Amino acid sequence: MKQTYTGPHAAPGDGTARVKKLINDPSTVTTESLEGFAAAHADLVEVHFDPTYVNRAGGAVSGKVGIVSGGGSGHEPLHGGFVGVGMLDGAVPGAMFTSPTPDQIAPALQAADGGAGVLAIVKNYTGDVLNFETAAELADAEGVTVRTVIVNDDVAVQDSLYTAGRRGVAGTVAVEKIAGAAAERGDDLDAVTALAEKVIANVRSMGVALTACTVPHAGKPSFDLPDDEIEIGIGIHGEPGRRRIPLASADEITEMLLTPVADDLGLAGGERVLLFVNGMGGTPASELYVVYRQARALLEARGVQVTRSLVGNYVTSLEMQGASVTVLRLDDELTALWDAPVHTTALRW
Amino acid sequence: MKQTYTGPHAAPGDGTARVKKLINDPSTVTTESLEGFAAAHADLVEVHFDPTYVNRAGGAVSGKVGIVSGGGSGHEPLHGGFVGVGMLDGAVPGAMFTSPTPDQIAPALQAADGGAGVLAIVKNYTGDVLNFETAAELADAEGVTVRTVIVNDDVAVQDSLYTAGRRGVAGTVAVEKIAGAAAERGDDLDAVTALAEKVIANVRSMGVALTACTVPHAGKPSFDLPDDEIEIGIGIHGEPGRRRIPLASADEITEMLLTPVADDLGLAGGERVLLFVNGMGGTPASELYVVYRQARALLEARGVQVTRSLVGNYVTSLEMQGASVTVLRLDDELTALWDAPVHTTALRW
Repeated sequence: MKQTYTGPHAAPGDGTARVKKLINDPSTVTTESLEGFAAAHADLVEVHFDPTYVNRAGGAVSGKVGIVSGGGSGHEPLHGGFVGVGMLDGAVPGAMFTSPTPDQIAPALQAADGGAGVLAIVKNYTGDVLNFETAAELADAEGVTVRTVIVNDDVAVQDSLYTAGRRGVAGTVAVEKIAGAAAERGDDLDAVTALAEKVIANVRSMGVALTACTVPHAGKPSFDLPDDEIEIGIGIHGEPGRRRIPLASADEITEMLLTPVADDLGLAGGERVLLFVNGMGGTPASELYVVYRQARALLEARGVQVTRSLVGNYVTSLEMQGASVTVLRLDDELTALWDAPVHTTALRW
Repeated sequence: MKQTYTGPHAAPGDGTARVKKLINDPSTVTTESLEGFAAAHADLVEVHFDPTYVNRAGGAVSGKVGIVSGGGSGHEPLHGGFVGVGMLDGAVPGAMFTSPTPDQIAPALQAADGGAGVLAIVKNYTGDVLNFETAAELADAEGVTVRTVIVNDDVAVQDSLYTAGRRGVAGTVAVEKIAGAAAERGDDLDAVTALAEKVIANVRSMGVALTACTVPHAGKPSFDLPDDEIEIGIGIHGEPGRRRIPLASADEITEMLLTPVADDLGLAGGERVLLFVNGMGGTPASELYVVYRQARALLEARGVQVTRSLVGNYVTSLEMQGASVTVLRLDDELTALWDAPVHTTALRW
């Protein structure tokens, strides 16, 4: 007997499915989540509503270049979790998997300006790029100098469901960390922008999905993935990747992710890298370390030295099971900026 | 047509199901994961194999009380993620959801002894308690003074599948943090033990599962939970809780977790607490903050002040979807120890 559901957990359709999530209503989850985030971390962040954006507690730092990023919600801790000392001054969360609007982004850019201009770090999705562009014009009209960099680290596909060119994925964390450190030490807008571009030129990523995820208001998985298949090269919104293959071993999957990343970077023996294994949200930490182990072994087999590491859920796709592998080519300058103190809810040292 | 699977991902049974995880083989996942963990965090930890335990990098600190915890794997970052300065000196991971053995625990206790004795922090599961007891006797025979505290913060049930009395769950993080801080500042074994007992007396938790999880070598979900039901009072190994109910709103569920916790603690208006919303592994951060928001509102409605907060995946059940709410009654002493510097892979400030 089929049961019919009504109310906030009822999935769109014939009423026989429910969205099994810790939510009150799909239409309020982003706002309620941000209210909780603001209350839990009042020492680090302020959340503004209507329009919605996240600010470093205490507001813009006079004389410091401001750093702002943003994008659809559902990728937490990206970006709000990276607001704080040594990283972002502002983050602009859109609706789930949806670009933030110019009227959210523009006030966030203004709020982050301490008089030295603002760098906007934008992941390469058409909506994000357009809306940040419009917002930068609005902010400029208010006297804020805005530079924009576009992160496009995903080597999986050229052009995609929401993108012309490569998508921006987990490599964004490295761009935000290093640009944030440069701004914190007092670099000017040109220098901070050049460093962000340097990271973008030297960071590549690729991911895999074992399961799909469900956007609350969609009420059904973002794509269909059979029980015995995985998607190599998945996007962080479940966009198609390179290919579907039968479930393989962790070592085989890791090789399929690491090799295109290392090849695209043109890594040579003797080079140093940051190796970042990112969880998509629903994969246990133990599995992420199994992937890290093999990715590191493959890099070492190429003569590449892994001198910095990051493992965990940093750029997620709600509860998707899967992972991505990101490699950033390091030199002394990028290493020092990566190591510089950071104090945010998601990254802290 | 049913397909038959063989190899490492084949689930036990008739060969028609696969375990969809980033693993190479169920029998090697714990070891491979620890190898990755050791390689990623060599600045903080050393992992010993055969027998397996995790050590603070550099070994025991002379004159400092050692702090050791342990338990089944599958709850990462617990416990290895809490090894480092200001928290644990050692962690002993058993097989997935399985108690570590005395021959693992005893060398970990010895390795953590800097001459001032060792406190063992044990979650209340029968196997863990017995094996730590035997290990303490073995270590004692080698001249190591061991004290043991039993964490039993889960108010959901008295006695359970693997436990006499209450289970130990997410409150363990607070016990480890505060005992670790006391040891780091130079408290002796009696004082550190008394502080751990004080935390245990003042911390309570309760959890909910929306989905089950799959232990790799079991190859099937640890329990069955229909699509439209949730389990209130779930244990971290999927042990039964208080009751199954139809899916409810996040606010309703949060009330079902927070109220027994606050009532059991006997919280009165004007008291201060740490509010800790823990993810079970597969729940997005956005949902954890929705739970935090309501738990905080309910505490404030009782006149209780939330003066410290923690939100994230700290004591997980593999990829289980769900969350737990932990409340720790604070005073100036516990607040100062909670705030003391900590430098581990999972907790750092």
